[in-house]
Amino acid sequence: MAGDLPGGPSDAAEPDGFPRRRGPGRPAGRRSGAADTRRLILDAARSEFARAGYAGTSVRGIARTAGVDPALVHHYFGPKESVFVAALDLPFDPDSLVPDVLAGGPDEMGERLARYFFALWEDPEIQPRLLALLRTVLSGDAAAGVISDFMTTELVRRLARELDAPDALLRANLCGAQLMGLAFTRYVLCMEPVASTDVDTLVASVGPTLQRYLCGD
Amino acid sequence: MAGDLPGGPSDAAEPDGFPRRRGPGRPAGRRSGAADTRRLILDAARSEFARAGYAGTSVRGIARTAGVDPALVHHYFGPKESVFVAALDLPFDPDSLVPDVLAGGPDEMGERLARYFFALWEDPEIQPRLLALLRTVLSGDAAAGVISDFMTTELVRRLARELDAPDALLRANLCGAQLMGLAFTRYVLCMEPVASTDVDTLVASVGPTLQRYLCGD
Repeated sequence: MAGDLPGGPSDAAEPDGFPRRRGPGRPAGRRSGAADTRRLILDAARSEFARAGYAGTSVRGIARTAGVDPALVHHYFGPKESVFVAALDLPFDPDSLVPDVLAGGPDEMGERLARYFFALWEDPEIQPRLLALLRTVLSGDAAAGVISDFMTTELVRRLARELDAPDALLRANLCGAQLMGLAFTRYVLCMEPVASTDVDTLVASVGPTLQRYLCGD
Repeated sequence: MAGDLPGGPSDAAEPDGFPRRRGPGRPAGRRSGAADTRRLILDAARSEFARAGYAGTSVRGIARTAGVDPALVHHYFGPKESVFVAALDLPFDPDSLVPDVLAGGPDEMGERLARYFFALWEDPEIQPRLLALLRTVLSGDAAAGVISDFMTTELVRRLARELDAPDALLRANLCGAQLMGLAFTRYVLCMEPVASTDVDTLVASVGPTLQRYLCGD
C-alpha cells in the first residue's frame, strides 16, 4: 500500500506529526488517476485523524475532506481501521494479528504473541517503520494520542473481546505495556543485555509473562 | 538537595537536555558561598555528563570544569553516582533502592520492587520529576543515553550483583523494561484501563512478573 504514497507536499512537511515511509516515489507527471485518488484519501485521512483523533474520525469525514464519495474510500481501503493502517503505513493489521495470536487455543498464547512481536521487529524491512511509529507514540504529541487510541480500540479491545474474561481489557493492556517497554529497551535505547540477547531467550523470558497476563489467575 | 539548585541561566536554557526542577529559587544577592559552589559543581556535572556520557565522566573532570578541587565535589556530593543523582534531581538513589528491594529475602522481591515503583510514581511531589526524567529518556537525545547508562551501571548492575545468578544482568534489565512500559502506559499515555486501575491490583499483576524475572527458572 505504501508504494502508493509517493513523495510530495505531505511527505516534506508532515504537519500532522505522523511518520511516513520515505520512498523514491514516482514523478508527478506519471501518476495514474487511481494513485492520485488514493493519495488524496490518505492525505485527508492523516489530516482528519490528527485533527479529530481516532475515535472522532469517520470514513464519511475523510471522504468529505478528500472531496470524494465515501464509497470510494471503502472501495480502496475498506473500513476506518484499514484506512488508518494504510495512512500510517502500519506494518501489522489488527485483522490478522489478533486471530494469529489466538489461533491454536489458550495454552501458548503468550509465546505466540511474543513470537509475533519479534518477527515484526526483527524484520529489517519492518523495523524502521515500527521505530518511526514508536517514536511518534513516545513524542507525546497529538499523533501519539491518535495511535494509542487506535491501539486501544482495535488491538487491545479486540484481543480483550476474544479473551472473554471480566478484566480482559486490563490483561490486554498489560501485555501492551510489557511489549512497549521491551521494544523501547531493545530497539530504541539499545540497553544491554536485552539489546543483544537472542530472540528465543527473550521469547522464553517474556512469553510466560504475556501468558499470565492473558490467561493467568 | 534540589533546594540548592536555584533558578538561573542553566534553568532557562537547559543546553544539555537534562530535566531540571523549576523552583522559586533564592534571589541571587542572597546566595551563600556554599550554595554558589554547589550550583557551580552541579552545572559543571550536567555539562560533563552531557558531553562525555555517564561512563566517560569523572569527579575529577567535573571539578576541573567547575574550577574547584575534586575534594570539594566529594565533600558536597560524594561519589560520581551521587553527583549524578543531585545534578538530575533524581527522586531515588540506587544506594537505598537496591537494598530496600532486596531486604527481606528473595520470596517477595518482585512485589517489593513493584510497590517501590508505585510509591515513587504515585507521590504527587515525585511524579512530575519522574515524568520529566522519563520524557528525557524517551526523547532519544544525548541526555537519554546518559540516563540509560546511569540506570544500567548503577541500578541494573547493582541489582544483578546482588541476585548472584549467571544471567542476572538480563533479569534486572527485563524488570526495567517491564517497569518502563508500565510507567509509559499509565503516566505518559494514560492508556485505559491501566491508567485508572488501583495500585494494589497492578502490584498483584506485575509483582509476579518481576519476581519471575528476578528469581524464576
